Amino acid sequence: MVAVTIECIKTCAQTGARLGRVHTPHGSFDTPAFMPVGTLATVKTMSPDELIGIDAHIILSNTYHLLLRPGHDVVREAGGLHAFMQWPRPILTDSGGFQVFSLSAVRQVTEEGVHFRNHLNGDRIFLGPREAIDIQHALGADIIMAFDECAPHDASESYIEASVRRTTRWAEACLRAHTRADTQALFAIVQGGLSPVQRVASARDLTAMDFPGYAIGGLSVGESKEQLYGVLDTVVPLLPTRRPRYLMGVGSPDALIEGAMRGIDMFDCVLPTRIARNGTVMTSTGRLVLKKSQYARDFRPIDASCTCPTCRTHTRAYVRHLLHAGEVLGIRLTTVHNVHFLLTLMRNIREAIAHDRLASFKEEFFAAYGMHAGHRGF
Amino acid sequence: MVAVTIECIKTCAQTGARLGRVHTPHGSFDTPAFMPVGTLATVKTMSPDELIGIDAHIILSNTYHLLLRPGHDVVREAGGLHAFMQWPRPILTDSGGFQVFSLSAVRQVTEEGVHFRNHLNGDRIFLGPREAIDIQHALGADIIMAFDECAPHDASESYIEASVRRTTRWAEACLRAHTRADTQALFAIVQGGLSPVQRVASARDLTAMDFPGYAIGGLSVGESKEQLYGVLDTVVPLLPTRRPRYLMGVGSPDALIEGAMRGIDMFDCVLPTRIARNGTVMTSTGRLVLKKSQYARDFRPIDASCTCPTCRTHTRAYVRHLLHAGEVLGIRLTTVHNVHFLLTLMRNIREAIAHDRLASFKEEFFAAYGMHAGHRGF
Repeated sequence: MVAVTIECIKTCAQTGARLGRVHTPHGSFDTPAFMPVGTLATVKTMSPDELIGIDAHIILSNTYHLLLRPGHDVVREAGGLHAFMQWPRPILTDSGGFQVFSLSAVRQVTEEGVHFRNHLNGDRIFLGPREAIDIQHALGADIIMAFDECAPHDASESYIEASVRRTTRWAEACLRAHTRADTQALFAIVQGGLSPVQRVASARDLTAMDFPGYAIGGLSVGESKEQLYGVLDTVVPLLPTRRPRYLMGVGSPDALIEGAMRGIDMFDCVLPTRIARNGTVMTSTGRLVLKKSQYARDFRPIDASCTCPTCRTHTRAYVRHLLHAGEVLGIRLTTVHNVHFLLTLMRNIREAIAHDRLASFKEEFFAAYGMHAGHRGF
Repeated sequence: MVAVTIECIKTCAQTGARLGRVHTPHGSFDTPAFMPVGTLATVKTMSPDELIGIDAHIILSNTYHLLLRPGHDVVREAGGLHAFMQWPRPILTDSGGFQVFSLSAVRQVTEEGVHFRNHLNGDRIFLGPREAIDIQHALGADIIMAFDECAPHDASESYIEASVRRTTRWAEACLRAHTRADTQALFAIVQGGLSPVQRVASARDLTAMDFPGYAIGGLSVGESKEQLYGVLDTVVPLLPTRRPRYLMGVGSPDALIEGAMRGIDMFDCVLPTRIARNGTVMTSTGRLVLKKSQYARDFRPIDASCTCPTCRTHTRAYVRHLLHAGEVLGIRLTTVHNVHFLLTLMRNIREAIAHDRLASFKEEFFAAYGMHAGHRGF
């Protein structure tokens, strides 16, 4: 029995985007879905109740960070991540691969895995496919990820080729180590940088192993939106339609729409929570930088058309005051708003797919948000 | 018409403590009451909804801090502090006197008020009785405080005498400036340091002016608990029984009980919120320092007998992890718990008064909490 399945409900006649529902041992969620990031077993500043209140149905947590703090053994003793953080709905954990390659300056890649130093205290750590799976078993997420190498943005074609081959071998090793396929679904990660040849090779090799889901990794690392969409155009057609497709680390509003149009079912990104902590909020008419003096006496909600708890209750002037004073409630209010904004965007995307009008929705959204062709921001 | 009145329900036969209910334009609260401190128009880390959820009925906010950020004119434009922070229940604002004398190193005291420097940017500011009342009119709290001088802990008898006389003249000036007695109640503040003679003089002079409430100020500034209780024993008998009595800046569990036993109706203190941000929590069996390693795998709630949202949902191990990782949710959970702890203590004190057994309750509470005669902590 496979732990996680996707029910494909329909495709958008205008774009080919997929409307679906993913079923997991901790409940279902509608796709295309955005997963808020709870790196250290908490979506920064938010309680589980608040996440449920704004209709979050799945969150992501980071294996590497939980390995360091509090340690996966503590989470196992607590009864897994769901019990530890008291989040009753689906969780996806990444494999730690991305963090090993992005956070750790000193590392040595071998066939068995990666020797690197803990970015907090410099301790030596080894992480390979077997370790990544063992840790993710301890964490107990519904969806777990294969250990992969995320090659540097500027890697040579020959390095990418070797890296993709290794990532495929590691995916096989993960599959062998994964003894709990009935309760946790192991997704493979297609790598290959910006090389169409290597992306195709990676997708072909991994789909041959029939994983219950496929991610596209190694993106959102500095490439242009055009390059990102180009990789999706190369890879997605090679993925099986009966499996969920997850675009890792991408969550700007434009990329969520463009990704959905290219057949992506799941997304995650720290964007909404990270920019919230700097006081930047997304609204139906574009971004606001709330610390600006122009909002000091602005007693309107952040977004008059928004139904989030922040906009239902508080003014721009109050939130700005809290942000300026360094009050925690300020970043709580902006975080709730931004996560709600992306969850609402996904609901609107799903509704547009249901009505075969995602391309029209994209035009309307971009116009209201102030986006244009070649727009690079969020 | 007086904006704020106290209804005296009964006195404890065992101790003389008062059980009452204070009525304000924004509703009533039971006394003895603890007021959580919302310095900058927010009880640090908490939302108004959460405060209501743990049954907070009145909060305190600080005039001096709001004068600097966001400015009382912004709060006035928002429609007052209740509207600005969306807190529908009673609010008390202090006069700024305490902060002027405790936060500002450079100051010059004149008959009209105090010239001092903004502790954030060094700007020159002048605050006197008229200014303090004008600002508190803009803030619109239900209970506002007279502008007073909080003399230094080590001031000479002659300095304290001059300071008390000036505080009395400032109280008269506040009364003259206060044109909104029907919507905001102006409380006077008894000063006099540790001098019984000056405390008596201050109480006599101020009660002669018939304020709708009286505070005892200048305490919790380094004196011993015995000295604190000595001042209460001197002052409280001189205060009119038909007016609320407010002990400023005191909120340790033992002092709340001892203060109630001496006839105090209202208290405020940053203690529960401040220690929460360091990871210290109060429980029915004493304090816990949650960052300690002994809690890393402790999957019990902070206090098994506690009904707060934190204890109903989360474990010591999870809260400790969040605190160690610097996650905002950690200090949210400890803050909610600590404020709930003191609000519950006040409810238990009121129930003990109702049953004429506050002295017995004190013995039971102290024994469970690990306090003893001469205990100096919290």
